[in-house]
Amino acid sequence: MTSTDPSFEEYLEATRDERLDQYMEFLRIPSISGLPEHADDCRAAATWLAAALETAGAEHVSIEETTGNPVVYADWLHAGPDAPTVIVYGHYDVQPVDPLDLWTSPPFVPIVENGRMRARGAADDKGQIHLHVAALGAILKTRGSLPVNLRYVFEGNEESDPRPLAGWLEANADRLTAEVAVISDTGFFDGNLPAITIGLRGNVVLQVDVAGPPVDLHSGQFGGTVENPINALARIIAALKGPDGRVLVPGFYDDVAGPTAADRARVAALPFDDEAYRTEVGVPELVGEVGFSTLERRGLRPTLDVNGIWGGFQGAGVKTIIPSHAYAKISCRLVPNQDPARIAELLEAYIAAISPPGVTVTIGELFGGPPSLTPIDHPATVAAAAALLATFGREPLYVYQGGSIPVATGFESILGLPVVLLGFTPPDDNAHAPNESMALANYETGIRCVARMWQELASGGRPEGTPRDGTS
Amino acid sequence: MTSTDPSFEEYLEATRDERLDQYMEFLRIPSISGLPEHADDCRAAATWLAAALETAGAEHVSIEETTGNPVVYADWLHAGPDAPTVIVYGHYDVQPVDPLDLWTSPPFVPIVENGRMRARGAADDKGQIHLHVAALGAILKTRGSLPVNLRYVFEGNEESDPRPLAGWLEANADRLTAEVAVISDTGFFDGNLPAITIGLRGNVVLQVDVAGPPVDLHSGQFGGTVENPINALARIIAALKGPDGRVLVPGFYDDVAGPTAADRARVAALPFDDEAYRTEVGVPELVGEVGFSTLERRGLRPTLDVNGIWGGFQGAGVKTIIPSHAYAKISCRLVPNQDPARIAELLEAYIAAISPPGVTVTIGELFGGPPSLTPIDHPATVAAAAALLATFGREPLYVYQGGSIPVATGFESILGLPVVLLGFTPPDDNAHAPNESMALANYETGIRCVARMWQELASGGRPEGTPRDGTS
Repeated sequence: MTSTDPSFEEYLEATRDERLDQYMEFLRIPSISGLPEHADDCRAAATWLAAALETAGAEHVSIEETTGNPVVYADWLHAGPDAPTVIVYGHYDVQPVDPLDLWTSPPFVPIVENGRMRARGAADDKGQIHLHVAALGAILKTRGSLPVNLRYVFEGNEESDPRPLAGWLEANADRLTAEVAVISDTGFFDGNLPAITIGLRGNVVLQVDVAGPPVDLHSGQFGGTVENPINALARIIAALKGPDGRVLVPGFYDDVAGPTAADRARVAALPFDDEAYRTEVGVPELVGEVGFSTLERRGLRPTLDVNGIWGGFQGAGVKTIIPSHAYAKISCRLVPNQDPARIAELLEAYIAAISPPGVTVTIGELFGGPPSLTPIDHPATVAAAAALLATFGREPLYVYQGGSIPVATGFESILGLPVVLLGFTPPDDNAHAPNESMALANYETGIRCVARMWQELASGGRPEGTPRDGTS
Repeated sequence: MTSTDPSFEEYLEATRDERLDQYMEFLRIPSISGLPEHADDCRAAATWLAAALETAGAEHVSIEETTGNPVVYADWLHAGPDAPTVIVYGHYDVQPVDPLDLWTSPPFVPIVENGRMRARGAADDKGQIHLHVAALGAILKTRGSLPVNLRYVFEGNEESDPRPLAGWLEANADRLTAEVAVISDTGFFDGNLPAITIGLRGNVVLQVDVAGPPVDLHSGQFGGTVENPINALARIIAALKGPDGRVLVPGFYDDVAGPTAADRARVAALPFDDEAYRTEVGVPELVGEVGFSTLERRGLRPTLDVNGIWGGFQGAGVKTIIPSHAYAKISCRLVPNQDPARIAELLEAYIAAISPPGVTVTIGELFGGPPSLTPIDHPATVAAAAALLATFGREPLYVYQGGSIPVATGFESILGLPVVLLGFTPPDDNAHAPNESMALANYETGIRCVARMWQELASGGRPEGTPRDGTS
């Protein structure tokens, strides 16, 4: 480097427009992993991302095949043997976009409005990937080197299937040496307050198919003599959760470890207003498990939701039939120490037991990921907290998120690494919903925060990783 | 007529192919009244039918506007003042065709296979309309006159909305003088045995809309804190009907008049095998109201079915959301003396009372028609029975049908006429389902039966009509 090199901050200021253009280019690729017809788009996003990493100065950039969409791997490993090695994780795939008519602009035509980038993936998770790539590029361009060793692992099936990444991690465990994994797929707390997520709920998703007669029947000619698959499915769903918000599946709560008194105290200390939350969500009343606060219900308690249901006639007007089939997608959010496979078994057994006569009920398992906990006093968590304070001007809150990142437990169980969940999206980012957006202030400051975190981590010395056994 | 005129039977034999061609031409018009985009097709079917009536020799053929699709009216009134006057009713509109992939041939490309005409409307009700028009044409061509006066009233909204015909009947009550209405929109009994329907269930159809948050929410971030509209809708539906098949809406059974001991005895005397019915319907087990036989459940007891349900993510794979909305179409079949308006009120009040907090439930009334009873000893019923014996070789069975024909009670209540339900479709006609078909033997013999019925009715003398007050 010569003395005429601009400072890190000057460089970021000077390249802001170019950076936003690239961010928008990334968002234009409709990489919806849940819809098979977008497989080529997912691959295009991977190719775009690999080129961006290359341009930023990453090495060993490669597009690696999995059983699903490819993983984009890259690294920079010149910080020396005493510097810590960090795996940075994100995902370039996005959620589907329906209902499309609720978007105020097309989901894959990014637009900047009111200080926000609006597009599918702007927050979850392309915005956070791009922020990491931008930080890498700016550091190398202005300083020539990093204080830590980095390995980037960006996958393309986070929204649809945990197996491709898990398989890739297992196959590549030997080369993925590191002390910690940093996952940027979470966000800030209400009020857009910097936060570090120290707990994530797991999940399990099932599809229930109820089959009645082989063809739709005239509900006048047959009504009253055969079971109606929709009525049967409604009875099954109604029997899964009581009006008190408790899941009624026998054994469902057996392995629930918390919340502990410390958990409850930490949550109670968070600045949170039920009425403001209710207004923001836009519902007439908050509803949940009796005996727990809203934040406890969201982060520390398991629950069950139907994500989709369909059967029979859905058009305008009337078609008086007993439908041949009815379907539902049902998911549970899980907390430590619930095991997705065990919960899926309990659900399947219970649904089989309560299925009424006259119909055939089959259950398919679609998805599952265990809940996750982050060590609050790990040096990487401490470094993240210091970086947030230095760049966003505030000590972070420590929160439990309701969502699931199956990969967090993948890094824990497959690579044996502690995981730090450092995400930058605002709480009203509409992830998974129409009009997803990212606050550009969070994106820009996030770049500075990432750079600062690498410094904090390096100056804190090499943290002790959890012993790695490579098999658990 | 000259002595070289062919006999009625010779004429029908000679014109069979031409008649089937015309029947198929009628079936090619996709006159689905429940789908607004098919309004032009409904009008095309009316135009086609008017031309066919004209060709058959009907007079005063006219396409008359209603608030929906037009009514096709025609008459032949030269039998003299002492001969009875009969209104013949049918409908040229048809049900929607989805699920399309279950049809073995396209629904609007009629095909003859195994002695059946297969197409949407082949049985319900174009086949039965066409049979009446064919009978008229053959009688006038071979005999030059009819023994009774006939008024044809063919409508185009039977499958979607009872109001257009009701409004037209009310507006035209003065000119529609008659002694009886014959409705050919029912069918034969199991085993394809000739039958006269002496009871029809009424119905009421509601749509229930459950609204939660204004946009779909991430079920991880929000699950457990807000009511899920699908879970709420499932609880509502599950609360409408018990596992014993009883409808749980308070007051639902208050006005149910039967079944009487005579009703039950008449039903018990019908040849009917539960196991054969179960096999034909294709379900693992028959299910219905405790304490009643299958035929009683079908014809003499009210019931409740969900005809369609939808909400949230219905695609392949996973989208973990709490949906903004969930919807269901719910219908009840009613028996004497249940009033559709009263039952709709009870349903709406009950659903409002059981709707859970945290969501907004709205209910729209889509459809309603009262149950109906036909006098078994009316001269027209007696004439129909004699005609069935003479042409199909068997005394008819007297049955209660589970379906609804709102127009039957329209003729009763608006025109003050007794109604004879004389229909010819086989019991396995798949009306309202994929692969609807009509047995051509029933269609052909039905033409002879209709002609014979007019003779029986004339020789039986002019029946006493129910006093007509024109206002009830």
